[in-house]
Amino acid sequence: MEKIPVGILGATGMVGQWFVKLLAHHPWFEVTALAASARSAGKTYAEATTWVIPGEPPEAVQGMVIEACDPHLPCRLVFSALPGAEAGPIEEAFAAAGYVVSSNASSHRYDPDVPLLIPEVNPDHLGLIEVQRRRRRWQGFIVTCANCSTTQLVLALEPLRRAFGIRAISVVTMQALSGAGYPGVPGLSILGNVIPYIPGEEEKLEREPKKIWGVLQGEEIAEAELAISAHCHRVATRDGHLEAVSVALEREAALEEVIAALEDFRSLPQELELPSAPARPIVVRKEPDRPQPRRDREEGGGMSVVVGRVRACPVLDWKLELLGHNTVRGAAGGAILNAELLLAQGYLG
Amino acid sequence: MEKIPVGILGATGMVGQWFVKLLAHHPWFEVTALAASARSAGKTYAEATTWVIPGEPPEAVQGMVIEACDPHLPCRLVFSALPGAEAGPIEEAFAAAGYVVSSNASSHRYDPDVPLLIPEVNPDHLGLIEVQRRRRRWQGFIVTCANCSTTQLVLALEPLRRAFGIRAISVVTMQALSGAGYPGVPGLSILGNVIPYIPGEEEKLEREPKKIWGVLQGEEIAEAELAISAHCHRVATRDGHLEAVSVALEREAALEEVIAALEDFRSLPQELELPSAPARPIVVRKEPDRPQPRRDREEGGGMSVVVGRVRACPVLDWKLELLGHNTVRGAAGGAILNAELLLAQGYLG
Amino acid sequence: MEKIPVGILGATGMVGQWFVKLLAHHPWFEVTALAASARSAGKTYAEATTWVIPGEPPEAVQGMVIEACDPHLPCRLVFSALPGAEAGPIEEAFAAAGYVVSSNASSHRYDPDVPLLIPEVNPDHLGLIEVQRRRRRWQGFIVTCANCSTTQLVLALEPLRRAFGIRAISVVTMQALSGAGYPGVPGLSILGNVIPYIPGEEEKLEREPKKIWGVLQGEEIAEAELAISAHCHRVATRDGHLEAVSVALEREAALEEVIAALEDFRSLPQELELPSAPARPIVVRKEPDRPQPRRDREEGGGMSVVVGRVRACPVLDWKLELLGHNTVRGAAGGAILNAELLLAQGYLG
Amino acid sequence: MEKIPVGILGATGMVGQWFVKLLAHHPWFEVTALAASARSAGKTYAEATTWVIPGEPPEAVQGMVIEACDPHLPCRLVFSALPGAEAGPIEEAFAAAGYVVSSNASSHRYDPDVPLLIPEVNPDHLGLIEVQRRRRRWQGFIVTCANCSTTQLVLALEPLRRAFGIRAISVVTMQALSGAGYPGVPGLSILGNVIPYIPGEEEKLEREPKKIWGVLQGEEIAEAELAISAHCHRVATRDGHLEAVSVALEREAALEEVIAALEDFRSLPQELELPSAPARPIVVRKEPDRPQPRRDREEGGGMSVVVGRVRACPVLDWKLELLGHNTVRGAAGGAILNAELLLAQGYLG
Repeated sequence: MEKIPVGILGATGMVGQWFVKLLAHHPWFEVTALAASARSAGKTYAEATTWVIPGEPPEAVQGMVIEACDPHLPCRLVFSALPGAEAGPIEEAFAAAGYVVSSNASSHRYDPDVPLLIPEVNPDHLGLIEVQRRRRRWQGFIVTCANCSTTQLVLALEPLRRAFGIRAISVVTMQALSGAGYPGVPGLSILGNVIPYIPGEEEKLEREPKKIWGVLQGEEIAEAELAISAHCHRVATRDGHLEAVSVALEREAALEEVIAALEDFRSLPQELELPSAPARPIVVRKEPDRPQPRRDREEGGGMSVVVGRVRACPVLDWKLELLGHNTVRGAAGGAILNAELLLAQGYLG
Repeated sequence: MEKIPVGILGATGMVGQWFVKLLAHHPWFEVTALAASARSAGKTYAEATTWVIPGEPPEAVQGMVIEACDPHLPCRLVFSALPGAEAGPIEEAFAAAGYVVSSNASSHRYDPDVPLLIPEVNPDHLGLIEVQRRRRRWQGFIVTCANCSTTQLVLALEPLRRAFGIRAISVVTMQALSGAGYPGVPGLSILGNVIPYIPGEEEKLEREPKKIWGVLQGEEIAEAELAISAHCHRVATRDGHLEAVSVALEREAALEEVIAALEDFRSLPQELELPSAPARPIVVRKEPDRPQPRRDREEGGGMSVVVGRVRACPVLDWKLELLGHNTVRGAAGGAILNAELLLAQGYLG
Repeated sequence: MEKIPVGILGATGMVGQWFVKLLAHHPWFEVTALAASARSAGKTYAEATTWVIPGEPPEAVQGMVIEACDPHLPCRLVFSALPGAEAGPIEEAFAAAGYVVSSNASSHRYDPDVPLLIPEVNPDHLGLIEVQRRRRRWQGFIVTCANCSTTQLVLALEPLRRAFGIRAISVVTMQALSGAGYPGVPGLSILGNVIPYIPGEEEKLEREPKKIWGVLQGEEIAEAELAISAHCHRVATRDGHLEAVSVALEREAALEEVIAALEDFRSLPQELELPSAPARPIVVRKEPDRPQPRRDREEGGGMSVVVGRVRACPVLDWKLELLGHNTVRGAAGGAILNAELLLAQGYLG
Repeated sequence: MEKIPVGILGATGMVGQWFVKLLAHHPWFEVTALAASARSAGKTYAEATTWVIPGEPPEAVQGMVIEACDPHLPCRLVFSALPGAEAGPIEEAFAAAGYVVSSNASSHRYDPDVPLLIPEVNPDHLGLIEVQRRRRRWQGFIVTCANCSTTQLVLALEPLRRAFGIRAISVVTMQALSGAGYPGVPGLSILGNVIPYIPGEEEKLEREPKKIWGVLQGEEIAEAELAISAHCHRVATRDGHLEAVSVALEREAALEEVIAALEDFRSLPQELELPSAPARPIVVRKEPDRPQPRRDREEGGGMSVVVGRVRACPVLDWKLELLGHNTVRGAAGGAILNAELLLAQGYLG
């Protein structure tokens, strides 16, 4: 199969670097365009980029010249790692010009005609694409992935929702520094400390699951009805968001049933054998002290969510710990998986 | 007033060091005896101790010779910082021999005739002392303080319980390294990491508040009825446990009422002006990103609890963050405040 | 004695905050003016400042209105915590207008007529003030303090220089995050890491001691002749620069002589009993594993240098570890001590 | 080629785990025996081991039963990761019984008839094996690898020694937590701190290079004559020792010559294409702020040394920073490379 040429918008930032890294040896996609702000345009990728993620930048991109974020890139599909403030109009311009945009930005997440997609959870929301194109008279379209802390929460709880229904979720996050981008949180602020606040994060975490778990009715998503409460914290870890979760179910379940639901969970990306889909979307650890950010974030190449300490909750029904790699599954890897689903379902036709 | 001679059991360990430090200039108490394990007995304090807490060891104790933990110490009151496995019988021997024991160990916390005391919360539980002495035919008696994470939770929520009643608490802790003693958690395990498990901690946190908030009926404590769920984590902070708390109240309250209840809270130790009682047991911060362990743990000399981010909870009723100094209010300082209450109430007569 | 009104230039930054904190209860000086960039001018100190240093900002300054850095402040003496790029002309304007400027900035450190002052080391360099005023036709004048890592190195080695002469110094620094200001080094860069490079730092450390140890001959400083080699590193500590030093002496010395010289060192600030002068400028620790940044940086209120591990060096003559509080002795505290010396010597006339 | 059966002594500790990990897919060796202390013997590897190094333990070893450290293991070659206190007599017993022992322990490093081997540096010291066997009347023999901080220092400076001669070395180390084993340094001791002392480390670093660089004359190593001074520090990094080095050469060199010597260095392991030999034993980085422990330790699979910041030294001749992976090249990987050299040179015949 000839590879599909793809571009990266915002290629020099931290999430852009993850796109570059994860796409370097992708079996379906080939990076043919790197775009960034006017300040970087015209420079080579090596010149314009302070590489901050693990490993070295792939040789193949080092000499590529960065272009402006205008919809004249030599590709059909673009991944967007643009900062929230700029992503909105740029992504729209690309979609209008016929590009397929797989975005990691938050700008269009809540648009009623834009899918907020986790391939294992709501692949049927791709039905919105037709609505989006028609309403906006676009050749292309936009698909978004959820906030990092949302993605891993919703993915890990999806089997419980399917099997038993979910009434309420209380989630406390301990989020890694990379979630704030680069330079992000000053070393002086976080060394030997925890910061119990991440601007806008609790709102996203309380809102996004309702859309993702909503039902596509005609041209609209009817939001799921459940209560979600989030406390978000920044801790001194590099990658990997840890979440302490209590959940109330609609139907009674036994502990073994809960664990079996988590462990046995497979979904459309696994059936389709999408290249970035982890064999096991949810890995359940039995040790009492797992998951841990530094030890478990690489599970499934950073695309699995690791769950541990499943036990009864005296206030809601069940409690557990879950961990996801925030810059892989929670950002670039998630957007790539979305694009793989689009291709497999014929949307890149 | 002549100072009351006091001893410290387990004086060489980390909590023992905090007793030494906090008692060095105490207006009522004077350290006249230091006791520890057989391995240390006979050495000077300077020889036997690897000082690991902030600051330098007080000059006055450096030359004192450490004694065995036998009930022949030259004092009437002893503070116990003994490890859980050894504390039980030693504390009993001291109480039987007529000593007043103010303990930080967990051995006797759940004995039905031993007060589990937070002076701002349940000073009337001192009524158990008479029962304890009679039943056990002891001249002295034992009073215990609660687990560090319990103490700050119960103290911070006490004004809400008084004003509105508490139905349920969901608490997620991010606990400091000092809570594990010394050497405690290996650097290799915690650097850039979070460990989502502290052995025995969740059980303590779900159990102790029910006794502390219980009602003394005749010779027994009738445990409080409420649901408590705890998730406990170790994070890379030195001192200061942070807790993300959601709470369901029995009666409706407005946000201003909740905050006012917290801010206005004063209790018996403040009225009695006990030396270690903070002027404000609960300090409410209004900034969006407080309390933080490194910045707020010293509030009230480490004896206040700092609360922040009070807001509505979509699952229970209210959520907030609270922080306490685990080795001061949550350990040595708490036991000293207990002893001060005993003295003020005539129990050291 | 009536207190002398002083101003702080660059009062909102990290070093500015240290000036505010250290001057809050100063026996000789009283802060009557706070100045900062145009962006902050007109706001109260509380509004304009993100307080990042330990403790809370002093109540007294919170409501003070910040002024522009123009030489119309209600004081005679100003402390400058201005960033290097801006300090030069502003400090000159103040000095020309008659203000005494005690600066922590590097702009004028190497001017031949500006003292680069460490009161224990080269108080006689104040003789340059007369030269400076005459040459520049200024009413006021500028005095500077050295770079943080220089100050503690030169102060610690001064007794060895006096007693035995110094031929060469090899110094490797492990410098705290606060040395880079705020926000400074990103958490992502330094967590679990060491950065073996601090822009400009090695040049300062190899150059400044030669001026400080130079001899005032007529109107000029004849630089000291010695070889200095520096390797500078940023490590994950908050405050306190650690330096591993090897030194070659001009005259032979015995270990006890070296240690005695360090321990017995007292100088003019101690004789004059300047308020910020530590009783012991150099504290020698005998434990094998000291000094440590977190445990020793507060020595002498952050104004002492702590030395340990003095031993023979197989390559040069002696080696030792030394530690100083970079934002106290190495910045704000150093500039305050300079001003105290000026006052005591009649330069604030 | 049929794989050679090998055993691991001290297989459950941290270095033992690295042997297990690095040998899991080795092309020449196959682990057929795991041995450890009496406490572990009889248990499976999974039961006896708290896996603390990155990644998961290889499936193949999990069910293997641990044996006692007696010389009855089903293999001819054993790798020793035994603690120093126990290694001496056990390794001797194995060598006496005919085993080849490739040791990471320090017990026999300084024995005059035991090679202290770095394959790129002194492969000719294998000539001592014959001496050792004859003198001790052993069928087998012992080969040791150097201390972690020594190995990377000597390897990095070897091309300079060959090209220009070395008169003196001043080295300051910033060593990772893993160098102290597990549990090693308490989190409380190292968080936000540097410890300027590692027991015994400076002695090793000042002594071992002289033997490694010594000349095999007849039956003895004539130690190299040069001056070495070491200051050793523990810092809050996980893996990767950083060393700031100044070096005095015997012959003059230009900067380009120094860099070329480092970059062009290849030695016997590269010629023999030993499986664990990195293609480039020394990697020179040109960026001003490299090498960094977290970013550069994996270079060459952890078997290369990374050098940066090569520049003139005002006190000695040249200065540079160098970094090595202490538990790979500096421990298990080094001992494996030693064994590969033994095999290639016919010593396992």
